[in-house]
Amino acid sequence: MKADIVSIGTELLMGELVDTNSAYLAARLPSIGIELQRITHARDNLDALAEVLRQAWQRSDLVLTTGGLGPTDDDLTREAIASLLGETLYVDPESLERLRETFRRRGASMVQANVKQANLIPSARSIPNDHGTAPGWWVESNGRIIVAMPGPPGEMHPMWESQVQPRLRDRSDGSVILTRSLKTHGLGESAINELIGHLFHLPDVSLGMYAQAQGVQVRLRARAASAEVADRMLSPVEAELRNLLGDNIWGADEDVLEEQVGRELIRRGLTLALMESCTGGLLAHTITQVAGSSDYFLGGIVSYTNEVKAAWGVDPSLIREHGVVSPEVARDMARAGREAMGADIGIGITGVAGPDELEGQPVGTVHMGFSHLWGEHHISRRFPGQRALIKQRAVVQALLELLELLRNNPNFHG
Amino acid sequence: MKADIVSIGTELLMGELVDTNSAYLAARLPSIGIELQRITHARDNLDALAEVLRQAWQRSDLVLTTGGLGPTDDDLTREAIASLLGETLYVDPESLERLRETFRRRGASMVQANVKQANLIPSARSIPNDHGTAPGWWVESNGRIIVAMPGPPGEMHPMWESQVQPRLRDRSDGSVILTRSLKTHGLGESAINELIGHLFHLPDVSLGMYAQAQGVQVRLRARAASAEVADRMLSPVEAELRNLLGDNIWGADEDVLEEQVGRELIRRGLTLALMESCTGGLLAHTITQVAGSSDYFLGGIVSYTNEVKAAWGVDPSLIREHGVVSPEVARDMARAGREAMGADIGIGITGVAGPDELEGQPVGTVHMGFSHLWGEHHISRRFPGQRALIKQRAVVQALLELLELLRNNPNFHG
Repeated sequence: MKADIVSIGTELLMGELVDTNSAYLAARLPSIGIELQRITHARDNLDALAEVLRQAWQRSDLVLTTGGLGPTDDDLTREAIASLLGETLYVDPESLERLRETFRRRGASMVQANVKQANLIPSARSIPNDHGTAPGWWVESNGRIIVAMPGPPGEMHPMWESQVQPRLRDRSDGSVILTRSLKTHGLGESAINELIGHLFHLPDVSLGMYAQAQGVQVRLRARAASAEVADRMLSPVEAELRNLLGDNIWGADEDVLEEQVGRELIRRGLTLALMESCTGGLLAHTITQVAGSSDYFLGGIVSYTNEVKAAWGVDPSLIREHGVVSPEVARDMARAGREAMGADIGIGITGVAGPDELEGQPVGTVHMGFSHLWGEHHISRRFPGQRALIKQRAVVQALLELLELLRNNPNFHG
Repeated sequence: MKADIVSIGTELLMGELVDTNSAYLAARLPSIGIELQRITHARDNLDALAEVLRQAWQRSDLVLTTGGLGPTDDDLTREAIASLLGETLYVDPESLERLRETFRRRGASMVQANVKQANLIPSARSIPNDHGTAPGWWVESNGRIIVAMPGPPGEMHPMWESQVQPRLRDRSDGSVILTRSLKTHGLGESAINELIGHLFHLPDVSLGMYAQAQGVQVRLRARAASAEVADRMLSPVEAELRNLLGDNIWGADEDVLEEQVGRELIRRGLTLALMESCTGGLLAHTITQVAGSSDYFLGGIVSYTNEVKAAWGVDPSLIREHGVVSPEVARDMARAGREAMGADIGIGITGVAGPDELEGQPVGTVHMGFSHLWGEHHISRRFPGQRALIKQRAVVQALLELLELLRNNPNFHG
């Protein structure tokens, strides 16, 4: 089955909102054998929207839309689908009752504007929305399918998982597109291309790569009648890639750096504490995005002044001697954070996030100290980019370094 | 001038990368009078890409592309533009020399794969890339323009700002599309629609609204021959909106919540400290995204265990009596954080980020304490959604509450 995704909302074309729904859906189509042909963003204009839908409708067996199902006058997805199919909107009593019930449950009063969220057309069935007021639409006509889902991810994700994906899986011909991603660090795109270029343009397996904050990712992709067959196509190529890229691979597929780190810490029974300066809490935030991180993460200190650093045990003489942005202070922050929290491992980060240089050190300079029961060390980097990017790159580097530290020291145990 | 944006990269259609480039560009087109018609994501396939470009080329005077300019075999933007215009690629000696120079500066060796990044076609001029190896393309043919820019934001943004936007501004007919956004909190979309619905479908000013994490945003938009004229169209409507929405408006246009908070704190000479539990450092990270935040943000403690809370001055008896997820502990965390850092204002956050409930309290329960020289208070919320969303919503709520606290107390001064 071939599919188009249409993201709807003028805010997307005004650059006021970044579309994450397309990526969410796109990532979930291959496993049910659906091949995504195109993603289009359309604005809240009836003619423009109907035109986008018409083109998608001609190109694909399946059109997935998100957004434009709200109660307001510029929510036009229902109207556009009706005009595409030349059908007339009517208020569906059942949907209206469900809508009233939703408002009752919330103790909110339902206003007239919401009534249009109960609209249907003859070809459409309503998809209940358990997390908001906008029901989705499942439309079938001339053997093709349109699925309209609400824009807020908190409403769209559960609707996709519980109602849309299962029904699409039943329709798919059983063929699958299997993908595998190898996540690397320490090599640039062209360097990797030199190593693995000969694997591009294989008959059955397509290869791609792209650079992201956590390093270059190499992606393998094969389409087959079953997951088993596709896997037999991918495995030898993956083996050769792993052989060629070796230690530059830190993870694969769904692997997330902070989750990898968490698994290693749990496996060893080790605990972690932080003292962050220039990253301002981003490392703690990243680590605590992982469910269950409280099993190994004791806490962190965001020390945004020298006084706070000193108050939490950083030796002021080191700051005087070497400056606050120095390897010595980074190491002492790691030690102080570790001791203050009673952790097995401490990480200290000090640097210049910008926009202005600090102590004559250029923007992007970051020193990271690592202190643990078996010793301590530091790494120093100079990251390109602006404040937000520097913070992010420093956090990725710190997590990569911690992961390497753990993997190179199997004897570390809590 | 009418424009299309084409984001290129199979990773976008695999859902492995979220496209932020389109939003970046889309936000910058109105001020130079360029009307964005459509955003399309195309995969790294020569035919598919050429087809997307052909459609955009037919629809718009200007086509902006990002991505596909890298050195690897699946970077095909140059090839697709050449095939669209029926022109032949050649290696541009000047670009090649600049490329060699770039590698020399970096002390890296230039590999054969990079040579294709020096390719040009007769209709194209090279756009130097000061932050990467991929030069852009400025293509003119039949009175239409294609601008091809690299995908990495760190390379694309400066190329746009320093070289592309100025040249497009010279071409524009001087007309502008002026937009104004009013950022609200405390009201849902349909409630706002009830209040302002009569302002939709005005002749000269188009109105839109959408919900985001920081509340519902109402957007005004007018096109005119000059900014002055457009402003005269917008102002009366803005005035009526401000009158109708009153205190529910917390900011406008480029206003960012954490920057608003920062400005208020600087104006009063007040300092801030945090003790975060369930938000795990996200509040500190958000506050330190603001350049110059070190002027008012002293630091924060991410206390992920009761021991750490107690060690930093939280009264253990309160945790025993009321549980760690309680208004009492949130207030004491605010006080302890404030005193530990010697700040004027302290914020304490404790709650249940999930996935599991804590002390019998459901996921999403968050208590926020505010302690300052003039007293203390707390707010309690139960946020819907998953871990990441709960952390984000709690942080937005805490910032909104702090902003309101400051605005309602003009007497607060450091």
